[in-house]
Amino acid sequence: MDKRTIKVSPKNLRAASQAILVKLGMGNEGAHEAAKVLVATDLRGIDSHGVSMLKGYFSQFKDGILNPNPNWKIVREAPATATVDGDQALGISIGAELMELAMKKARKFGIGMVTIANCGHLGAVGHFAMLAAQQDMVGVCMTASSGGVGILPTFGAEPRLGANPIGLAAPADQEPPLLIDIASSVPIANKVQLLAETGQLVPAGWISDQKGTPIMEPSKAPSPGNFFHLPLGSTRTMGSNKGYALSLIPEALATLLAGSMPSMQRLRNGMKGSFMAYDISKFTDITEYKQGMDYMLKTLRETKPAPGNERVVYPGLLEHEIEIDRLQNGIPISFEIAQWMKDTAQGLGVEIELS
Amino acid sequence: MDKRTIKVSPKNLRAASQAILVKLGMGNEGAHEAAKVLVATDLRGIDSHGVSMLKGYFSQFKDGILNPNPNWKIVREAPATATVDGDQALGISIGAELMELAMKKARKFGIGMVTIANCGHLGAVGHFAMLAAQQDMVGVCMTASSGGVGILPTFGAEPRLGANPIGLAAPADQEPPLLIDIASSVPIANKVQLLAETGQLVPAGWISDQKGTPIMEPSKAPSPGNFFHLPLGSTRTMGSNKGYALSLIPEALATLLAGSMPSMQRLRNGMKGSFMAYDISKFTDITEYKQGMDYMLKTLRETKPAPGNERVVYPGLLEHEIEIDRLQNGIPISFEIAQWMKDTAQGLGVEIELS
Repeated sequence: MDKRTIKVSPKNLRAASQAILVKLGMGNEGAHEAAKVLVATDLRGIDSHGVSMLKGYFSQFKDGILNPNPNWKIVREAPATATVDGDQALGISIGAELMELAMKKARKFGIGMVTIANCGHLGAVGHFAMLAAQQDMVGVCMTASSGGVGILPTFGAEPRLGANPIGLAAPADQEPPLLIDIASSVPIANKVQLLAETGQLVPAGWISDQKGTPIMEPSKAPSPGNFFHLPLGSTRTMGSNKGYALSLIPEALATLLAGSMPSMQRLRNGMKGSFMAYDISKFTDITEYKQGMDYMLKTLRETKPAPGNERVVYPGLLEHEIEIDRLQNGIPISFEIAQWMKDTAQGLGVEIELS
Repeated sequence: MDKRTIKVSPKNLRAASQAILVKLGMGNEGAHEAAKVLVATDLRGIDSHGVSMLKGYFSQFKDGILNPNPNWKIVREAPATATVDGDQALGISIGAELMELAMKKARKFGIGMVTIANCGHLGAVGHFAMLAAQQDMVGVCMTASSGGVGILPTFGAEPRLGANPIGLAAPADQEPPLLIDIASSVPIANKVQLLAETGQLVPAGWISDQKGTPIMEPSKAPSPGNFFHLPLGSTRTMGSNKGYALSLIPEALATLLAGSMPSMQRLRNGMKGSFMAYDISKFTDITEYKQGMDYMLKTLRETKPAPGNERVVYPGLLEHEIEIDRLQNGIPISFEIAQWMKDTAQGLGVEIELS
């Protein structure tokens, strides 16, 4: 695996991503939104969900799985809620609009919630939660995917669960915001494959053998198909029943509330999601909320570290620090992804600048 | 530890609990509600949060920490939300009313949410989520406690986190409902102490040594004060950053939205909570939702077990089976707790029947 990277300015990376998406048939507005989400995600250091996703989206547009000009619509609505049919839109191109709708409802009713079915990838869910935090709300975004059902339930030998991430963001006053974005599997999806490719051992508690027995010692990475992922907690004794339960929350609050069948049915490879906004001022004093959040985040950050650790961070702090660095110094893009972007742009007859 | 039990009928156990609570000064209605919650929890097999809690409540009433005749009130309200000051009520005596209020708002606006600060123990949060599931809604209930801040953040050497449980219940058609109730620590609070008392080893991944280093092998139970609890996931490599994040969700959505300071500040030992109801019919077809839930729960339940395991269960299934058994055969109450109840009732001059 080539670890070399080039640094690209956020502006150029956005423009390049947008240009490629437009050439794939997306309207300017949708491509602009999608590029914004990808680069915002790369800026936070979540490289797995940034412009590295473009290659997959490219295939999905080519295969007709994604609709470049979707006409998403509300299929059911109550004052504080809406259920949306995504018309196979690329999720990240419309996620901001859905969170905006949830926030609009929250401003009026205290909370707002929008569910969506039949759409493509929704990216790093924390991003949409952050849109609410930037407006003095608590934001929650969760998704489920039929494609990613590869995790065992506790005691099970057949994968039934998706990584189904839950994102939550909440504003502070002086501290960078709380930004949670957690999946219910131990490592992210392709991590084991990466370890296999580089001959590294898989850490204890990440996977089971092919019969479903958790492997609780570092082990040689098995070839694909010869292992399963474990839910967070790894074994029942260590709390895997909780990681298992965690992966069902987005099924109950996104998938099924969006009118979709459970992800494990795998009839369609579409994403489901829900966007929730909580208008803080409708619950309590916004200044007090933020000061309370400051107290909590600062206390966590200043916690004495255990031996061998430099410091304690809170969810969102590293992302914030990486963002400051990358805004100033550019976003490191791997040679491999940069080359793919250049080749793809050339093949599509569009000029991009990666610097 | 005496493991002997007597079987008590739910009716007698409720009457006995209510009689004791009334004698402690609670009004009939509040005592009735609280007794109902405790026995419903025992019926589901959650013995740690059933009538075994009475002893603690007794002390809190005696010490004036709990207010037997509270006048809880809404301090801020929007159409779909309300913030409640609990006036130091015993949480379980008013939780059903708070979830009812959330459901009333959900019926009108699609979702409803009520937060509360300044109250006593809210019991097993899944119970209140179930009240919504019984009304064709998805229910969510989460709590945070200043008293229970004993879990380390990832990399940390000082406890900052509460177990902060999240409960969710959703209805199915043929299957018993989904009932999630998960805390963010590996074992429940007093489990390590119980192991110490009986000379058993503490499993790998439950605790750290007194310097904060996770103990990843079975070890002799340390004496109190010489260990800390680990968040779900145990180590960073195994995902403890997610268990850590999980414990902050109720701080963001309950504690701070209820107008309280973060639990780690420990200024008051009160509980905070939030009650959320999602009216399924406002999002999608209720029959489809339940059939989708059936498909998911049945598929999970019928998953082939890994070697050495009898079967796969889903969150709520065991609780449902235990409830059927205990409704028929009575609730097993430990000699110790039964004796405490008898002695206490006698001391209070009230007759109870435990059979």
